Amino acid sequence: MTVQRILIVSGTHGNEINPIWAVKQFNREENKLKHGIEYEYIIGNPIAYEKGSRYIDADLNRSFKGSKNIDHHNNSFYEINRANFLVNQFGLDGSKSCQIAVDLHTTTANMGTSIVMYGRRFQDFCLAALLQNKFGLPIYLHEKDRAQTGFLVEAWPCGLVIEIGAVAQNFYDPKIIDRFLIILSSLREEIYKLKNNLVELPKEIVVHVHKGSIDYPRDEKGDIDGIIHPERINQDWQMVQKGDPLFLDSQGIIHKYDEDQFIWPVFIGEVAYREKKIAMSYTKKEVICSQNQWVREFENL
Amino acid sequence: MTVQRILIVSGTHGNEINPIWAVKQFNREENKLKHGIEYEYIIGNPIAYEKGSRYIDADLNRSFKGSKNIDHHNNSFYEINRANFLVNQFGLDGSKSCQIAVDLHTTTANMGTSIVMYGRRFQDFCLAALLQNKFGLPIYLHEKDRAQTGFLVEAWPCGLVIEIGAVAQNFYDPKIIDRFLIILSSLREEIYKLKNNLVELPKEIVVHVHKGSIDYPRDEKGDIDGIIHPERINQDWQMVQKGDPLFLDSQGIIHKYDEDQFIWPVFIGEVAYREKKIAMSYTKKEVICSQNQWVREFENL
Repeated sequence: MTVQRILIVSGTHGNEINPIWAVKQFNREENKLKHGIEYEYIIGNPIAYEKGSRYIDADLNRSFKGSKNIDHHNNSFYEINRANFLVNQFGLDGSKSCQIAVDLHTTTANMGTSIVMYGRRFQDFCLAALLQNKFGLPIYLHEKDRAQTGFLVEAWPCGLVIEIGAVAQNFYDPKIIDRFLIILSSLREEIYKLKNNLVELPKEIVVHVHKGSIDYPRDEKGDIDGIIHPERINQDWQMVQKGDPLFLDSQGIIHKYDEDQFIWPVFIGEVAYREKKIAMSYTKKEVICSQNQWVREFENL
Repeated sequence: MTVQRILIVSGTHGNEINPIWAVKQFNREENKLKHGIEYEYIIGNPIAYEKGSRYIDADLNRSFKGSKNIDHHNNSFYEINRANFLVNQFGLDGSKSCQIAVDLHTTTANMGTSIVMYGRRFQDFCLAALLQNKFGLPIYLHEKDRAQTGFLVEAWPCGLVIEIGAVAQNFYDPKIIDRFLIILSSLREEIYKLKNNLVELPKEIVVHVHKGSIDYPRDEKGDIDGIIHPERINQDWQMVQKGDPLFLDSQGIIHKYDEDQFIWPVFIGEVAYREKKIAMSYTKKEVICSQNQWVREFENL
């Protein structure tokens, strides 16, 4: 089998509205069928979008847990049912079977345009490598975090998240919309070229591998009692070493990074992660050499 | 009577968190009593702040309707009760009577640091004039809008809103916090000087007088079907004339401003105003000459 249909999801979080607008514009300006590949565009969480909220009952982008959903004690949750619907409709065995899912997100953190991968699937590496090669985009490789599972693109054999920021929730920003349009256009081109052996992967890619997350300082009641330090805010992807400031608490005390190994924080101050007790996540930089196997796995999709 | 106690309110909207932090820091670094004037610092809507939402039942900053609250059919609303509590506690007849209220807000619109006045009270003009003279801040004079009433500072004999943006809801931004600190500090100085005849008002002030609001383009179902035009977004306080673009709809059609009179839009794209069906408000510029009466009214507070 080869790639025949690709799912483009926007509004997986209902208050990330720029991708929804970008897809609307893209869908209007481009043909649905391109280079023999069909595209399906869908709003991930239409009810949350209507309400301007991230989700109704639970984070949709943590609700794709496959067969675990069936016995899930929260299967009255709107998002659990929505996840099942999306997989039943557009999953590999769905009525409109898609081989690739691309999930479009925004962040209030100053991440720029970035790629998020979940685990080290070879077919994902193909797409990520081509996008990084074309635009120099940073790649956040999310893996081995038990506290965070059930991401949408994991329910498809190949898939990436495109994450663009900084932009406020529910705020339309034409610069952010333009960035999504560029990525959507390029993804189409790259997938077409890949399918037709018209492109070579770069020799290596650089990834930022997820290592963990850091919570805000908290007071004795457990309430947040600090802000991201002025020198740290908006410095996503920038290396932090021992002694660098992380937070400033309400007593005026600077909380510094106190470990020996270097880290590269991401999602610094992301508003939606406060409820997850994440002030920032941190990564390590890793260089990964391309393998021919990556393209073969992609061809076998 | 003369000014003895001033109320500083932050978090009137629970998701505007930078003023709360600024006040915390200010309160730590400065003495509560300064130049013989006592300061009361309070979080307007602590429950909404805890939840990270703008409000619980209703917008607190539209809930100060005085005696109208008593018979109000929504007096089970948290914010109606909270408004009554704040007035009972800190109002002119309250147990901790304050003569001036300053209400600190943020906006997702690119307003910079600005002053909002409600109506043309002489004592408010005093404060606004001194701040404009010192920093060149724009003044938004809100009046005669029946759709929007019950603002907090109207429940005190003198009061201003300080409105600073752009910043995302629930996102701490040290640059925004710094701006509030500067304003808080200057307000104290100016009020002290005013009280002690140590300052002269500028000869005139420039205000942007509220004239109305403009909704987004909508589709036949009533859903928003357009974004602020890329040339208009972030252009708060900038003059718009006939033919200038306002919106871009999902068909790619540009909606232009079609009236003859010049307008100066504010709160362009403010996220919280979508539910109020406001894409932007618009103003006219007016020059107002200072009057000695302004200072006399202030002295009589």
